[in-house]
Amino acid sequence: MSSIFSKIARGEIPSYKIAESDKFYAFLDINPLSVGHTLVIPKEETDYIFDLGEEDYSALFLFANKVAKGIEKAIPCARIGVAVIGLEVPHAHIHLIPINDESDMDFRKPKLKLQKEEMEAIAARISSHIKL
Amino acid sequence: MSSIFSKIARGEIPSYKIAESDKFYAFLDINPLSVGHTLVIPKEETDYIFDLGEEDYSALFLFANKVAKGIEKAIPCARIGVAVIGLEVPHAHIHLIPINDESDMDFRKPKLKLQKEEMEAIAARISSHIKL
Repeated sequence: MSSIFSKIARGEIPSYKIAESDKFYAFLDINPLSVGHTLVIPKEETDYIFDLGEEDYSALFLFANKVAKGIEKAIPCARIGVAVIGLEVPHAHIHLIPINDESDMDFRKPKLKLQKEEMEAIAARISSHIKL
Repeated sequence: MSSIFSKIARGEIPSYKIAESDKFYAFLDINPLSVGHTLVIPKEETDYIFDLGEEDYSALFLFANKVAKGIEKAIPCARIGVAVIGLEVPHAHIHLIPINDESDMDFRKPKLKLQKEEMEAIAARISSHIKL
């Protein structure tokens, strides 16, 4: 069965898209830790990030690099934090999280609730700053 | 002034070394979230990971990949989690954390206290499984 992230990458489930290449897809986390919290995934379904071949793994992190640089231009923050946990959805994904404090990376804190219009505006602003 | 991590990479401050290449260095976090919690750094001092050139950035993550594969062979765990926060020490570093649960990535939880002999044994066990 396809993972929810595979369906998002194929457009079968809607998402707030940030960037896309032939192999990778970036979109806003629907339960963000901070404004601009983005997920970066390989379109091809692989559960565990360290099971990716070295070429795909490197290309995924390089794609995430370009996305992170777009986020930090669009969202005021001290840094873009990076996290890969991978215990929730069986499809490798990199969290890119605008942070000002270590606590902004606490995955157990209450998530933000943003309206559809806000999410669309955030995605458009980040997207406009990304150069692939 | 050199960062504490530069001094560690140069051997001026002792560390529980896991692996080393000409450009990168991996060692046990002295305040681990879990047994085997490792830090991966570039020897050259760069504060923010996204300020690394693309070549060094990719090489750093590929080095971290090989270290992660060694850790998971040495330490029983569900996954190796990855985190880059970078607000504490002004020298880019990747956390590689053996995890069984999302809460194992909570940086605000109490850190483990391990004896020197335990840390040495963990470092030696992980190191023996790393193929650079």
